[in-house]
Amino acid sequence: MRIMGIDPGYAIMGYGIVEYKGSRFTPIAYGSITTDAHTPNEERLMVLYDELTRIIEEYKPEEASIEELFYNTNATTAIMVGEARGTALLACAKAGLRISEYTPLQIKSSLTGYGRADKKQVQTMVKMILNLSEVPKPDDTADALAAAICHAHHAGGRMPRL
Amino acid sequence: MRIMGIDPGYAIMGYGIVEYKGSRFTPIAYGSITTDAHTPNEERLMVLYDELTRIIEEYKPEEASIEELFYNTNATTAIMVGEARGTALLACAKAGLRISEYTPLQIKSSLTGYGRADKKQVQTMVKMILNLSEVPKPDDTADALAAAICHAHHAGGRMPRL
Repeated sequence: MRIMGIDPGYAIMGYGIVEYKGSRFTPIAYGSITTDAHTPNEERLMVLYDELTRIIEEYKPEEASIEELFYNTNATTAIMVGEARGTALLACAKAGLRISEYTPLQIKSSLTGYGRADKKQVQTMVKMILNLSEVPKPDDTADALAAAICHAHHAGGRMPRL
Repeated sequence: MRIMGIDPGYAIMGYGIVEYKGSRFTPIAYGSITTDAHTPNEERLMVLYDELTRIIEEYKPEEASIEELFYNTNATTAIMVGEARGTALLACAKAGLRISEYTPLQIKSSLTGYGRADKKQVQTMVKMILNLSEVPKPDDTADALAAAICHAHHAGGRMPRL
């Protein structure tokens, strides 16, 4: 099973593609798409959409895993994050991927066995599980890989111990 | 100038296309796209995107006008509205439309000369300006037409008197 995790954002959208076979992970490709804050919003969304579509075509994931977002801060920020997230959902759906959504709690639990793990613990587990030499940068990329791993655990039948 | 106004929403997305020439308006087409709450989010976004794209191809507006959204209520709602809004921006941008964004205050002022006008006053002005026999339903359609009229006033050089 080849899974693309996505951490959606307007300025930085993290992505991480992993192969999951016999409870073993192989990292395929990961990184982030960035957009320039000085360009119009619709152009930024087009960059995000076109880049995601290109990455999907190149690496051919079958499944997408995307974090459910919760904001209790600024609603204007939430609308913008929603715009970027909707663009990611659309790119995946148009490419025929099956999409799963996980809460931050599910992702943390799935990686560390502990829902209140901090960012650093999650990143360390991403590095270990994928056997990487260092934690992927920026954080958005590590978060995208964490979402992909979480989906493998859920879809692969190995549920996190809670 | 042919303008498409959009009132973005997940369940109901209003649209209204008007022709503006020599300070006169002709309504071309208006209505709403609805999506089923029981289908997955990404399928709903695809319906919104594909329908908007089809409407743009059929009526060939050159400009799009979309309301800037402000929410001080539920951030989860704001994220969902953002997803629908991002999908609308993307459909317009992909079709080559020029996009303008207006605040609710700008739209109300442009139609009624008064930023605190209520929904009903704005809808009555939409009906009068477009010479319609009744107020378009649902509200989302009337709001989309209001956004289109606002853009005509701004882009056409006739600024609202504030």
